[in-house]
Amino acid sequence: MRMVDLIAKKRDGKELTTEEINFFIDGYTKGDIPDYQVSAMNMAIYFQDMSDRERADLTMAMVNSGETIDLSAIEGIKVDKHSTGGVGDTTTLVLAPLVAALDIPVAKMSGRGLGHTGGTIDKLESIEGFHVEISKDEFVNLVNQHKIAVIGQTGNLTPADKKLYALRDVTATVNSIPLIASSIMSKKIAAGSDAIVLDVKTGAGAFMKTVEDAKELAHAMVSIGNNVGRKTMAVISDMSQPLGAAIGNSLEVQEAIDALRGEGPKDLEELCLALGRQMVYLAQKADSLEDAEEKLREVIRNGKALEKFKEFIQNQGGDSSVVDHPDRLPKAQYLIELPAQQDGVVAELVADEIGTAAMLLGAGRATKESEIDLAVGLMLNKKVGDTVKKGDSLVTIHANRENVDDVKQKLYESIRIADHADAPVLIYDIVTE
Amino acid sequence: MRMVDLIAKKRDGKELTTEEINFFIDGYTKGDIPDYQVSAMNMAIYFQDMSDRERADLTMAMVNSGETIDLSAIEGIKVDKHSTGGVGDTTTLVLAPLVAALDIPVAKMSGRGLGHTGGTIDKLESIEGFHVEISKDEFVNLVNQHKIAVIGQTGNLTPADKKLYALRDVTATVNSIPLIASSIMSKKIAAGSDAIVLDVKTGAGAFMKTVEDAKELAHAMVSIGNNVGRKTMAVISDMSQPLGAAIGNSLEVQEAIDALRGEGPKDLEELCLALGRQMVYLAQKADSLEDAEEKLREVIRNGKALEKFKEFIQNQGGDSSVVDHPDRLPKAQYLIELPAQQDGVVAELVADEIGTAAMLLGAGRATKESEIDLAVGLMLNKKVGDTVKKGDSLVTIHANRENVDDVKQKLYESIRIADHADAPVLIYDIVTE
Repeated sequence: MRMVDLIAKKRDGKELTTEEINFFIDGYTKGDIPDYQVSAMNMAIYFQDMSDRERADLTMAMVNSGETIDLSAIEGIKVDKHSTGGVGDTTTLVLAPLVAALDIPVAKMSGRGLGHTGGTIDKLESIEGFHVEISKDEFVNLVNQHKIAVIGQTGNLTPADKKLYALRDVTATVNSIPLIASSIMSKKIAAGSDAIVLDVKTGAGAFMKTVEDAKELAHAMVSIGNNVGRKTMAVISDMSQPLGAAIGNSLEVQEAIDALRGEGPKDLEELCLALGRQMVYLAQKADSLEDAEEKLREVIRNGKALEKFKEFIQNQGGDSSVVDHPDRLPKAQYLIELPAQQDGVVAELVADEIGTAAMLLGAGRATKESEIDLAVGLMLNKKVGDTVKKGDSLVTIHANRENVDDVKQKLYESIRIADHADAPVLIYDIVTE
Repeated sequence: MRMVDLIAKKRDGKELTTEEINFFIDGYTKGDIPDYQVSAMNMAIYFQDMSDRERADLTMAMVNSGETIDLSAIEGIKVDKHSTGGVGDTTTLVLAPLVAALDIPVAKMSGRGLGHTGGTIDKLESIEGFHVEISKDEFVNLVNQHKIAVIGQTGNLTPADKKLYALRDVTATVNSIPLIASSIMSKKIAAGSDAIVLDVKTGAGAFMKTVEDAKELAHAMVSIGNNVGRKTMAVISDMSQPLGAAIGNSLEVQEAIDALRGEGPKDLEELCLALGRQMVYLAQKADSLEDAEEKLREVIRNGKALEKFKEFIQNQGGDSSVVDHPDRLPKAQYLIELPAQQDGVVAELVADEIGTAAMLLGAGRATKESEIDLAVGLMLNKKVGDTVKKGDSLVTIHANRENVDDVKQKLYESIRIADHADAPVLIYDIVTE
């Protein structure tokens, strides 16, 4: 088998066999197939697409390129949730204890990553004492006993995907549905989950700028999951403006506590329920999505979700008193308001630009080496569709420096006030097959 | 400027600017842009094509990537002929003296190359004493005095094209009209010719398998030439069966001598006149193509073309007596006939397969290191459309080994005899703009 022939085959719109896809991915992982052949193949895939079978094969070839996590010691159906990424996305912090409160095992493996704010682990570390440096055995025991634990990402998972992604990034082939879908799904599958719930974001702050593209990606991933024996569902949600009000690490922990108490921002709550009910349903703890949603509302109402969060914090060495005393979370030195410059209705809060403003304050990492300031961030006081009067605070800036003119300027550029505007749709679609 | 952005631009079907194309080619030549980005770009070009302007810019960027030959010391309009390559193509050997006999400067720079037979220089070296190791000054003087000389390829011409071609070869992007056309034209332009005549072959033995593809390539090259100020014309000719009868080095020299005498195979003669008249016209030695053809016929009739060939051989140290005594050319030890196995009409002589048979005898180079046997080769006794009786010799095999069963088998596989067949069209089209 020669790679050049496989490139020609794909270039001509033909379907690659399972053996051919394995040859390609194995050879690339081992370094037998050079970058320049793979970049040509990726561009051919960009133009000619892949069938459902090819996508599933590509995903499994990447899963098999490295280690996989064995979660079989954990009882029950392990459902993982994945978001394609956005700004101010506090859903993981809310969903983990919420779902665990229904006796569904949440065995969360998480990274730190780059972005507007830190990853889930960074956010949780704004709780004093909380740490993820636990052994694999402790992790399994915690989940079996308490249904919830978080551990840092370990092991050499999907090395083929890492190599492929780095190459796609510099060869203009990032934006290909089969390549994106197999990349995401391979990581989830290698991480050992039995079922997967996907939050596919769309809009300015998301990778998929249009609803159509987001739907295509969601269907692609759901199809891959189901084709390789992992039940998968997806929600297509808006990321034209940030989700909720908080953007920042300790600010998002506080927002998650509010949400678990049933007092969080409406959009955050709505999305958490949409994703949560799919998780509960896939974990076979409810007979229907409606039933699942009712069960979730119940554990919020009766305080079990919040209790589960406290238990979770304690189990991993954290100070769970922050749940009742959120003022014990890291606080920024300066709170600076951003006044509206005119009367009107908020028509736009460009999500990625606002995320960049948070990063300017130090809430996220620009490079792997950057230090995160867990206390800083933004609180949105108005969302799209809200009426404002000149002088009203649009955003409260939580900063550890006095002069935030750069942040203010960035925010003013990202917020548009008009005569009229409607709140955007939050959930565009539910993809269950 | 970043290469990844240029790849994305081309991937999205947009036109690259002159500056962007120069950035791409300069950066690749210098090694600043890696293979993996260029292979992605090539695949994007494969799918999205290039405009006439982009093709001309790409060609000139490749010309400017290395040295160029300055033929300005040679008087007159230098017209170069290029063939896209086929089997048994003796046209260069015929055309060079034929055109020079009309006082048109033929300053031929030639290589050895790989293929079914050797290159023009290999063929000429089957004449004892003939050599191309002459200085640049001698070369110029010979052309100015005698209108004809051949020199080996020197200088680092179009290094970008060499690098690009090697990469395309292993990434399934050879077969792209803008990339093929700019590759060929950059080499011709760097070699210093003022005007260019192209012989674009089509059929089994050619790179372009269909007439449509050949036409598209011809138009692409003619357009590039005219856009960069080199008058260019093309002939689209058949290569479903080998041209003429001879396939082999000394055999083709002998065939060229016959043709210059007006006694060559009809198809070879017809194609030489079609190409020659374009050369004469572009050299401004005739007012029309018809006038040009008449002048060519005249120098064949009056012996001036043959005289020019003798003069040419002598000037470069060769034994010109071979022209009148072709038996002084290298001769193979064994002449073996290939008898027809049935009555009928020759319906197919698959050109590239027959070329491979000649290579099995040692007539061509499989690798750069291969030694060529100048004496061996094939003489086709029948062409497509000819009637044969069982036992008639289809081919005479000129071999330097007694057992040629492999060659015979290959030939039988490549020759089809049917009840009825017509001779193929030789010239499909003339492209003058």
